[in-house]
Amino acid sequence: MAKALFDKVTLIGLGLIGSSLGHAMKRGGIAREIVGHARSTKTLQTALKIGFVDAVFEDMGRAVEDADLIILCVPVGICGSICEQISPHLKQGAIVTDVGSVKGAVIAACSPHIPAGVHFVPGHPMAGTEYSGPESGFAELFDNRWCLLTPLRDGDQQATTKMIDFWQACGANVETMSAEHHDVVAAVTSHLPHLIAFNIVGTADDLEGITKREVIKFAAGGFRDFTRIAASDPTMWRDVFLHNKDAVLEVLGRFNDDLGALTKAIKDGDGDKLFDQFERTRHIRQNILDDEQDK
Amino acid sequence: MAKALFDKVTLIGLGLIGSSLGHAMKRGGIAREIVGHARSTKTLQTALKIGFVDAVFEDMGRAVEDADLIILCVPVGICGSICEQISPHLKQGAIVTDVGSVKGAVIAACSPHIPAGVHFVPGHPMAGTEYSGPESGFAELFDNRWCLLTPLRDGDQQATTKMIDFWQACGANVETMSAEHHDVVAAVTSHLPHLIAFNIVGTADDLEGITKREVIKFAAGGFRDFTRIAASDPTMWRDVFLHNKDAVLEVLGRFNDDLGALTKAIKDGDGDKLFDQFERTRHIRQNILDDEQDK
Repeated sequence: MAKALFDKVTLIGLGLIGSSLGHAMKRGGIAREIVGHARSTKTLQTALKIGFVDAVFEDMGRAVEDADLIILCVPVGICGSICEQISPHLKQGAIVTDVGSVKGAVIAACSPHIPAGVHFVPGHPMAGTEYSGPESGFAELFDNRWCLLTPLRDGDQQATTKMIDFWQACGANVETMSAEHHDVVAAVTSHLPHLIAFNIVGTADDLEGITKREVIKFAAGGFRDFTRIAASDPTMWRDVFLHNKDAVLEVLGRFNDDLGALTKAIKDGDGDKLFDQFERTRHIRQNILDDEQDK
Repeated sequence: MAKALFDKVTLIGLGLIGSSLGHAMKRGGIAREIVGHARSTKTLQTALKIGFVDAVFEDMGRAVEDADLIILCVPVGICGSICEQISPHLKQGAIVTDVGSVKGAVIAACSPHIPAGVHFVPGHPMAGTEYSGPESGFAELFDNRWCLLTPLRDGDQQATTKMIDFWQACGANVETMSAEHHDVVAAVTSHLPHLIAFNIVGTADDLEGITKREVIKFAAGGFRDFTRIAASDPTMWRDVFLHNKDAVLEVLGRFNDDLGALTKAIKDGDGDKLFDQFERTRHIRQNILDDEQDK
């Protein structure tokens, strides 16, 4: 077995991402010891029983004591308050990271609570499923997926390098960028699609003249693809939209402008405009498939 | 082999649906003879070579001569003109059907050209992939998928029964409903999702500050699910939106109202409203999975 990257890693939050990280660390021999903390005793018991952690602590302070790496696997809205709580218990030289889908707001909330001599390296693994909880995790979740790191401008370079190694050992491809750029990239490729999916599924559920039963029965016509992403964790997504408000509203504005133009083309019976748009989006799909083949 | 349902079936249009029907009829021994017509000579040659038709005709009139069943597998915008062209060549007692995603407009366009003694049974198999052309078809496309039939009010009951048998023999589940109701059901479960997918993929492609390369690279965050349906055949979809304008604009209006409310919740930082909506859509997904399990 390769030498472990970290002696002791603490997972705060043992849901889909936390449990998958536990499994991935076990698979790769990445940590000598993995300890976990979660709010509910039941989650702690489940995690221990499944075995993706070696020990669990009801007390968050005790969970992070002596840890070399602390990973916040919680909705972005509570990252700041967790940093505040663990702050007095962090050891010198430790690395704190997170897995939130928003980076600017998390950095603003966490940074004030990171003690001198502790390194904060914000991260965002772009991986997930529509399932949640400690039983939903699996070691392969990050394999060949992207993890975006957004190191602070004055951040420790060695800590960043170590987090790159960590995510690669978990199976991910890593890219670093600024938090500002990350938040726009995530708004376009992830947050807007989720918002639209949540919305369209709600619209279909509300319509008169067509029963819920029919929507469900005939979902295979296209609607079904939206329901999978609209089944993602509500707390996580609430926090994403509350904390990446500006970038989301910006891309949403563009989406609305474009949809207005398509709507006008339908109203006007402008078949050429519709055809051109549909032909263009088809090429984008081909580019994505080509990109995946390259890997 | 079971007795063939039809002696001679003519496929007009040999793309994804036409070729899949050819394969499904061969698999089920549904027709004694399958002949095909398409606009391009290359398509005819390909179809013959693959073997999902027994004979092909460049002349549409000759293709339908003596046919017991004629299936229009073409974009909904040209169904009327095709009916007009084949009308003088249809034999008494023949059934004409189509596979269009819109039913009201197709009925309005085709009905005037259906001769007395010929039965028109409009249909819509809710099945497809993002691929097109004579090479894209496969016998299993309709297996366990829905085919909606929208018989005319004064339509021949025997012809409808025969088309129910036909689609079931092709592997589909069949339901009959009015054309008006069909067009609303399809607008909600299929046309709106496609329009939104076409739109969002276009929006992402247009944004400044983020490169096309990044959109493609990080597509797995949710965007990727949209690109598959946004890669569907542009001509088919142009015709759908031109010919189901009223129902699409109606559900699009509701979608916009709902999206406006979600946008306001984001602007206002109203986390409870966002959470409630996301929680609700999650249940709908569960219902769809339960429904599929029931089959």
